[in-house]
Amino acid sequence: MIYFDNSATTEIDESVLDSYLHVSRKHYGNPSSLHAFGEETANLLKQSRKQIASLLQVDEEEIFFTSGGTEGDNWAIKGTAIEKDTFGKHIISTTIEHPAVTKSLEQLEMTGWEVTYLSVDEDGQISLDDLKKAIRKDTVLVSIMAVNNEMGSLQPLDEIGDLLKAYPSIHFHVDAVQAIGKIDLSLAESRIDIAVFSGHKFHAPKGTGFIYLKKGRQLAPLMSGGGQESGKRSGTENVPGIVAMAKALRLLLEESTDKQAVVRSLKDELTSYLSGFNKVTVFTPAASAPHILCFGVRAIRGEIIVHALEKKGIIVSTTSACSSKRKTKASTVMDMGYSKNEAESAVRISLSHVNTLEEVHQFKAAFDDIYNQLKEIE
Amino acid sequence: MIYFDNSATTEIDESVLDSYLHVSRKHYGNPSSLHAFGEETANLLKQSRKQIASLLQVDEEEIFFTSGGTEGDNWAIKGTAIEKDTFGKHIISTTIEHPAVTKSLEQLEMTGWEVTYLSVDEDGQISLDDLKKAIRKDTVLVSIMAVNNEMGSLQPLDEIGDLLKAYPSIHFHVDAVQAIGKIDLSLAESRIDIAVFSGHKFHAPKGTGFIYLKKGRQLAPLMSGGGQESGKRSGTENVPGIVAMAKALRLLLEESTDKQAVVRSLKDELTSYLSGFNKVTVFTPAASAPHILCFGVRAIRGEIIVHALEKKGIIVSTTSACSSKRKTKASTVMDMGYSKNEAESAVRISLSHVNTLEEVHQFKAAFDDIYNQLKEIE
Repeated sequence: MIYFDNSATTEIDESVLDSYLHVSRKHYGNPSSLHAFGEETANLLKQSRKQIASLLQVDEEEIFFTSGGTEGDNWAIKGTAIEKDTFGKHIISTTIEHPAVTKSLEQLEMTGWEVTYLSVDEDGQISLDDLKKAIRKDTVLVSIMAVNNEMGSLQPLDEIGDLLKAYPSIHFHVDAVQAIGKIDLSLAESRIDIAVFSGHKFHAPKGTGFIYLKKGRQLAPLMSGGGQESGKRSGTENVPGIVAMAKALRLLLEESTDKQAVVRSLKDELTSYLSGFNKVTVFTPAASAPHILCFGVRAIRGEIIVHALEKKGIIVSTTSACSSKRKTKASTVMDMGYSKNEAESAVRISLSHVNTLEEVHQFKAAFDDIYNQLKEIE
Repeated sequence: MIYFDNSATTEIDESVLDSYLHVSRKHYGNPSSLHAFGEETANLLKQSRKQIASLLQVDEEEIFFTSGGTEGDNWAIKGTAIEKDTFGKHIISTTIEHPAVTKSLEQLEMTGWEVTYLSVDEDGQISLDDLKKAIRKDTVLVSIMAVNNEMGSLQPLDEIGDLLKAYPSIHFHVDAVQAIGKIDLSLAESRIDIAVFSGHKFHAPKGTGFIYLKKGRQLAPLMSGGGQESGKRSGTENVPGIVAMAKALRLLLEESTDKQAVVRSLKDELTSYLSGFNKVTVFTPAASAPHILCFGVRAIRGEIIVHALEKKGIIVSTTSACSSKRKTKASTVMDMGYSKNEAESAVRISLSHVNTLEEVHQFKAAFDDIYNQLKEIE
């Protein structure tokens, strides 16, 4: 099987699974317990936090563990809303966010909040001018993703950050789920207040994640209780998962520049190959993350291509996993100015550093076959 | 090591860990994906839901997966609050709930909600009369735990349910984290609308859990997004964890009556042993869950006993893990009418069906030594 659906989820790394196993078996104490058996686990938790902070060059007090990206986005948005509702009830976001963001915003809209959704251009980017115009006195949150999950398109985070420096009380939340290990974030130097990460997108266990919360920024808990995570996120910590995630992040970020270059070269190879077909449109803009490539075959629904490739042992997807079955949101493809028909043709290839050029060659052979068959039926 | 701290967390079962491993390695697809590789995972998810529902004799549509007990309690309370705030803003709970409940309630109190906290008697039980008096026209939620985590004391859930039958619009939420496999819940026949469960309390992986939500009852999502779990709890499902949890639940509930009897007999043995000491007070009432035993040695702080036992390889705790390090709440011991000094002497033994009579004998030998040493210092 060739797995080109790494933005939906990734295969857990075998050595990461080993760490999970080891901690599950040997260090199952509750880190909140007073006894040394609990302390051992608390130390592992501390080490993992330190490791992740050091990998991201931020302070360990700025890392908070969660159950994944959806929790992180919900927490960033609803936590800010709880924290700041006496200051204002206006939020700025974009039309192309992940449903974890848009659905959280919709829930707030039902309780009296106002949200301005910025549209994107043909490169999938918002306009800084639009953002500037959207800022109001009662704006308390700007929520803009780093890398779009369907398209791989990027946002001008540095420029957005520069603009927001004039508005220090606004929380700047970035869904970085598709960005980690793929683009450089430089959180410490950035204006970003909250960045959200999900373990299962980088070969860590499912059900793990963390957020970066800049020191000094307040965020009300979404999960209250025993006071874990400095009182900001209660619940007995999934220490085996957290230790494993920290290891997966280390592996991901080791020689990260080289890994990004390899992934980028695979994508370039695929892009130039697919661009050679008359009836193929490559939707992903040139300026995009190295791992996501969205394309369509004219007048052929994405599902047809997904299933045809699957028969040949190649796993890709139509846009995102989250929106593929349930159609939770309008497609990013349409937001970028393409037609409904074009959007419905969308197929997403999402790569990881574990993919190889050999797999790309096999993809090309398979797609050649499929394309020729489609031509015959025509 | 003798592990008598099973209410803090449990050791994962080795065969449960095997299932986790197998699913992690072989079925890592995203259950929301359209391709067959994702469908396989979706089927495992469906089977796990079915298995858990069948074990609890409820409908599979009534089971929703979470990241643990804290998420479940927060969801039950805050989700009800969002769902019902136009009907009323009054909640009834007790003084002895887990912090996941009390801290969620406190968060609501800061936004205009009113909470009536029922006190408990010397057996750790609320009075039905108090409950009846506390119900108001604007009461939308009654939140009462099944088994107290520090004491093992029980609540009269059937009688509370009978009383609440006259108030069909009130949500009845039960934190059942310490109850599962220890007492019979009969959810389907009960008046309980929402019951909360945590995997790591029954030898399942940490970071897993589920809630029971009675069909027809509405609960707003705490985690919005991709629409997983019928739109009620978004986020890519931790399928390895869920499959493993379903297996752990099956193992827990297999010959459950026998297991409960074995655990009860260990506790009875410990209770009668400890009651033989002049200076020992057994705080846990006779009518209690089979696995929790809370006691104290007069004028000796609980930590002293915990650390002395630990030196002899026996792991117990002072009250709950969640409150031991951070003192998040007043102690249940005091709520039951004991003095502050008595409460500070509290030590909790919490058993599992994996514990043995041999371990109880070793505990007795160790405690004999400790008690005699304490007498000498006196």
